[in-house]
Amino acid sequence: MTNFDVIVIGSGPGGYVAAIKAAQLGMKTAVVERAELGGICLNWGCIPTKALMKSAQVFRYLQHAADYGVAVNGEVKPDFAAMVARSRAVAENMSKGIQFLFKKNNIEVIAGHGKVLPGKIVEVENADGEKTQYTANHIILATGARSRVLPNLPQDGKKIIGYRQALTLPQQPESMVVVGSGAIGSELAFFYNSLGTKVTIIELLPNILPVEDEEISKQVDRAFRKQGMKVMTEASVESVDTTGDKCKVHVKDKRGNMLEIEADVVLSAVGVQTNIENLGLEETNIAVERGKVVVDDFYRTNVEGVYAIGDIVHGPALAHVASREAIVCVEKLAGHNPQPIHYDNIPGCTYTTPEVASVGLSEKKAIESGHNVKVGKFPYTASGKATAAGSRDGMVKVVVDADNGKLLGCHFVGDNVTEMIAEAVIIRQNDITAEQVLEAVHPHPTMSEAVMEAVEAAISQAIHL
Amino acid sequence: MTNFDVIVIGSGPGGYVAAIKAAQLGMKTAVVERAELGGICLNWGCIPTKALMKSAQVFRYLQHAADYGVAVNGEVKPDFAAMVARSRAVAENMSKGIQFLFKKNNIEVIAGHGKVLPGKIVEVENADGEKTQYTANHIILATGARSRVLPNLPQDGKKIIGYRQALTLPQQPESMVVVGSGAIGSELAFFYNSLGTKVTIIELLPNILPVEDEEISKQVDRAFRKQGMKVMTEASVESVDTTGDKCKVHVKDKRGNMLEIEADVVLSAVGVQTNIENLGLEETNIAVERGKVVVDDFYRTNVEGVYAIGDIVHGPALAHVASREAIVCVEKLAGHNPQPIHYDNIPGCTYTTPEVASVGLSEKKAIESGHNVKVGKFPYTASGKATAAGSRDGMVKVVVDADNGKLLGCHFVGDNVTEMIAEAVIIRQNDITAEQVLEAVHPHPTMSEAVMEAVEAAISQAIHL
Repeated sequence: MTNFDVIVIGSGPGGYVAAIKAAQLGMKTAVVERAELGGICLNWGCIPTKALMKSAQVFRYLQHAADYGVAVNGEVKPDFAAMVARSRAVAENMSKGIQFLFKKNNIEVIAGHGKVLPGKIVEVENADGEKTQYTANHIILATGARSRVLPNLPQDGKKIIGYRQALTLPQQPESMVVVGSGAIGSELAFFYNSLGTKVTIIELLPNILPVEDEEISKQVDRAFRKQGMKVMTEASVESVDTTGDKCKVHVKDKRGNMLEIEADVVLSAVGVQTNIENLGLEETNIAVERGKVVVDDFYRTNVEGVYAIGDIVHGPALAHVASREAIVCVEKLAGHNPQPIHYDNIPGCTYTTPEVASVGLSEKKAIESGHNVKVGKFPYTASGKATAAGSRDGMVKVVVDADNGKLLGCHFVGDNVTEMIAEAVIIRQNDITAEQVLEAVHPHPTMSEAVMEAVEAAISQAIHL
Repeated sequence: MTNFDVIVIGSGPGGYVAAIKAAQLGMKTAVVERAELGGICLNWGCIPTKALMKSAQVFRYLQHAADYGVAVNGEVKPDFAAMVARSRAVAENMSKGIQFLFKKNNIEVIAGHGKVLPGKIVEVENADGEKTQYTANHIILATGARSRVLPNLPQDGKKIIGYRQALTLPQQPESMVVVGSGAIGSELAFFYNSLGTKVTIIELLPNILPVEDEEISKQVDRAFRKQGMKVMTEASVESVDTTGDKCKVHVKDKRGNMLEIEADVVLSAVGVQTNIENLGLEETNIAVERGKVVVDDFYRTNVEGVYAIGDIVHGPALAHVASREAIVCVEKLAGHNPQPIHYDNIPGCTYTTPEVASVGLSEKKAIESGHNVKVGKFPYTASGKATAAGSRDGMVKVVVDADNGKLLGCHFVGDNVTEMIAEAVIIRQNDITAEQVLEAVHPHPTMSEAVMEAVEAAISQAIHL
């Protein structure tokens, strides 16, 4: 039985980072992977969707070329197959990058389904059903999650699909119902709508992008409607009839009325569920709570030598969270002294047009938590850079603690905000106050000035409002 | 004689911010302006150039539409007049915004050329030559700068032009020589080249964008050449013969050879000179050194009650510097206790493709200053977001102080970096260390992750390299 210092099960942004970190710290490391290297993020999530977003963005620029002084004498149309092919090529490129990093760091890749057994053993079953056992001093579970399947939305992969199929549809559907308006649902709704698919979003909660600050959600809602999407909130899909040529989606709207919406495809984007089945959790008595593996601040399970990170543990199911957990987990098991993650400072991004990014508490949650808040907002309409870029649909909103000047929450919507949120993370992580934000000279003209301006507004020092 | 608490001479990003701040602090305020409200920045600098940059960017997207899966069946061409018209409309929009803010804050606008006289008097000469005097407890000089004219490059506004004319040329020139490759020269060179003008850049120093880190400059140089520009460094324009149909530009190249380059237009972008003539500096004995008004940390000149901010004082001639100086100056004269500006933490941006942004010391300067440095770099080729966006020409480079982990310099080139640099300013302004940067979870997938990755690389903890 080959012995490793560290075996990681799963090679997504949690697993592959854990493996690389472990190898770099001098440990003999293996990764078990049953599918593509890089996991969902690289192959079916973050990366290929961003490629599609960019294609949609470029297509939208072309449609509005005249606004920028560019003349197009001819027809502009999306080449759906080419967009999908580009997206797949980007994903493959990144997956190959992981392969390269594994090789460079002397990490052994074991193909197959991994399972932890008592006695620090990992059993891997390959595609042919052959089982091999390995031992490791440290076993890190990083198996991630998959599209959640609801009983009223059984995914057949053709008519009722999850995000995977949505990334590689054989042809662009004429109409689509998107159920759930989190980042995944909203991004894919935006993509297909941009290309001309007739999109209806069905969201159970009162606002789309329900984890975002209400005001931000409402701005995205307005933008989506303006782009031609139909958005139904406080609505639910009761059933889908897929027997005919098209799907007949039976929706209960916010008034309780039943509607039937016809669509070529129904995309179920109602969240994810963890991949914890057949992982050996029961056999090894690893504690699980509400579908998630229970871990401490350093990702140790209740079983010595077994760790869990990423989507299968508490906290937001986001790639960057998994990667940071990987670092903290491995540094700790290697005897270093990493700081635990501050989960209050985890940013979230949605790459639609307009983009959305946020970190910390929404205004509502800040008030509910008992904070004495001051809110500042700066609209892109007052931003020189946004005006010059023709991207005036945006806003930066900050929620400042009136008692100590700290930024409780930063909520951005508009062009470039997914690149601007890192500043807010640094600010929150280091307890930088509103006054200190203003002392940092933001370059002009940028959209990042809106952060400064919103903070000014919060403490009643706005110049440009 | 009308008396004001504060009179500001000049309404650029220094002057208008000073006036608004003063008014907000309850002072009776006037602004003297001889041209458009908003100064060069809004009318002939930052803002209209950014509009042109965006037009060029959109045109470039159209040229590469197929790469993104967008089919264009027809001809795509730049409409130069429409781009210029759009740029002017954006500038006018922002200038009207200043007018609105002045009105809202009850700031009196006095049209004409302002001059300070002994006894806290401001004399304003209007377009008809009529002179009116006003008194003020505080007089703030914020008259800015203009294109520097060299003897070998006498600007006639037609064939040898400055940035103002370059923003409103009656037609797109077929060929252009750009002398000087700072932000202004580089941006306009990029714009005209993108549209098909044959552009040659002549730079006296060894690298284009000479204030940037050498490695960044070289990457932009490569990009510019790839875009079809001719770039000559260590070269100088000896003279220009404008007698014929075209300009004959006599250039001495780096080997000392004389060349003749023919071009429709020569753009002189060799820096700016301060507007300090006929401002009353001699009459009031205000100290001037090498063309700049001498001020202390709070922008007080040697004459009580007279202040100077922006391009006419020491420090980089940048809009955001002027605006911050305005705040510090006015808060101080109002009896508040503002912190002096840390000029080491001023970011600079160039909005070409690729974009450039930096703050702090270049690698070379950091070493020359005696620091023990660690350098970390992360190329966009290794970034998932950059790959998905089709923008792999970029890099983040950080210079870390090996002794204390602080970031001495941050140097960015590539897509979105002008929006990413604010994070680096916050980091430097608050003495955040490399380790602390890594503890701030950067969202995935973004280009801002490259900051984190470059910092990891600097302290030998790179995951993705």
